[in-house]
Amino acid sequence: MISKNQLKLLRALGQKKQRKALGLFLVQGEKNVLELASSTLTVKHVFATADFLEQNQTTLERFECIEASLDDLTKASTLVSNNAAIAVVEIPTFAAPQAQGMMIALDGVQDPGNLGTIIRVADWYGIKHIVASQDCADPYNPKTISATMGSFGRVQVHQLDLPSYLEQANLPVYGAFLEGESVHKTEFAAEGILLMGSESHGIRSQAAAFVTDKITIPAFGGAESLNVAMATGIILDNMRRQHS
Amino acid sequence: MISKNQLKLLRALGQKKQRKALGLFLVQGEKNVLELASSTLTVKHVFATADFLEQNQTTLERFECIEASLDDLTKASTLVSNNAAIAVVEIPTFAAPQAQGMMIALDGVQDPGNLGTIIRVADWYGIKHIVASQDCADPYNPKTISATMGSFGRVQVHQLDLPSYLEQANLPVYGAFLEGESVHKTEFAAEGILLMGSESHGIRSQAAAFVTDKITIPAFGGAESLNVAMATGIILDNMRRQHS
Repeated sequence: MISKNQLKLLRALGQKKQRKALGLFLVQGEKNVLELASSTLTVKHVFATADFLEQNQTTLERFECIEASLDDLTKASTLVSNNAAIAVVEIPTFAAPQAQGMMIALDGVQDPGNLGTIIRVADWYGIKHIVASQDCADPYNPKTISATMGSFGRVQVHQLDLPSYLEQANLPVYGAFLEGESVHKTEFAAEGILLMGSESHGIRSQAAAFVTDKITIPAFGGAESLNVAMATGIILDNMRRQHS
Repeated sequence: MISKNQLKLLRALGQKKQRKALGLFLVQGEKNVLELASSTLTVKHVFATADFLEQNQTTLERFECIEASLDDLTKASTLVSNNAAIAVVEIPTFAAPQAQGMMIALDGVQDPGNLGTIIRVADWYGIKHIVASQDCADPYNPKTISATMGSFGRVQVHQLDLPSYLEQANLPVYGAFLEGESVHKTEFAAEGILLMGSESHGIRSQAAAFVTDKITIPAFGGAESLNVAMATGIILDNMRRQHS
């Protein structure tokens, strides 16, 4: 059963301020909760239905599990869809990554769903680190975690002072603009940072100052733009086909 | 002002059954409504704020425009975000397209947002026709239209008996599977159909029977899958780089 205090905690973790104060975040949904077993994250509690706990006994054995009804879980969830499992997890602390390998940098990407989708496609292409400006969506927002479809455990998102980070990074910075070299023709270095801006503001001047290569996805039709997550995926595919 | 009957109509068009019965659909949001001016769609009414109507007088001159307050528009809207403009538009009737050029076929893609994002990326890559199984999301669902970001006017989506269509199409059918030839190595023909299944069921056997080439997006990391819209965009990019 979910106690009143636990319910209060789950509700509180829907808010960024509380996540920050408590150093905890929510992982919701069966697939995402099961991914925790193969991650290095510290899990405080797993609330789940009796069925889910029984079916995944071995996977979940090192976690403190609390049985709850689907009704109670649905009430406690910050997401719309039914939830057979909710975990409370510690927000990991890690130092900003050294600039090496292939990385993604995000400037002002504020939609949590987009950030989650970017984490998922980054994971598909084997990217381990995303650096993000302070005004990007919170990587621990429930909507972000949900959209990662389990990839949150394999990709680290670091919120930091993006221009300073890019300045000290000794790597090519590929900035996605509407007018740049076609990614079909760009010769990508084996290591580099893909810098993406938001759909509304693009890459802002403070970050743009450190772009070494302006790139663009060639258009063949009438659409004026692509969603930022979509564009990130397409460019990563173009980078990886040269350096797998 | 939006009359009671008009409000009733707008509300009704949130439902698929009513859209079908009335042969009408909703286009919401400033960008999408302005796109109507350059489309061949028949617009019945545009409800919009005085500001919006004044700013876009020339663009909207051939439409019957009705002034409404932002409050009334927000109440009438089926979408969450604020809406300065809502148009009521006739659902066009067109015959199933001849199988030619580059096309997309969708098997059981039921999420309206995904369908809209696919329409947008199809438009980016200059694809004019999408054929979709009868159980795909409604192309005229307000969420689909909204996610197209204006591309709904340039890409035609035809719901039809997909296996029969693929059977008579005299084109290569590239089916996206988790185990196929890498799209980085596939030689795509200049004309062909890209067939995508849903994330949960993949391409079902009735449609899979007509696949001539199994293709896959190579994975480099831990994610098990990609969102269907994302995967469509990445594969289209791989097709277009060979045939622009």
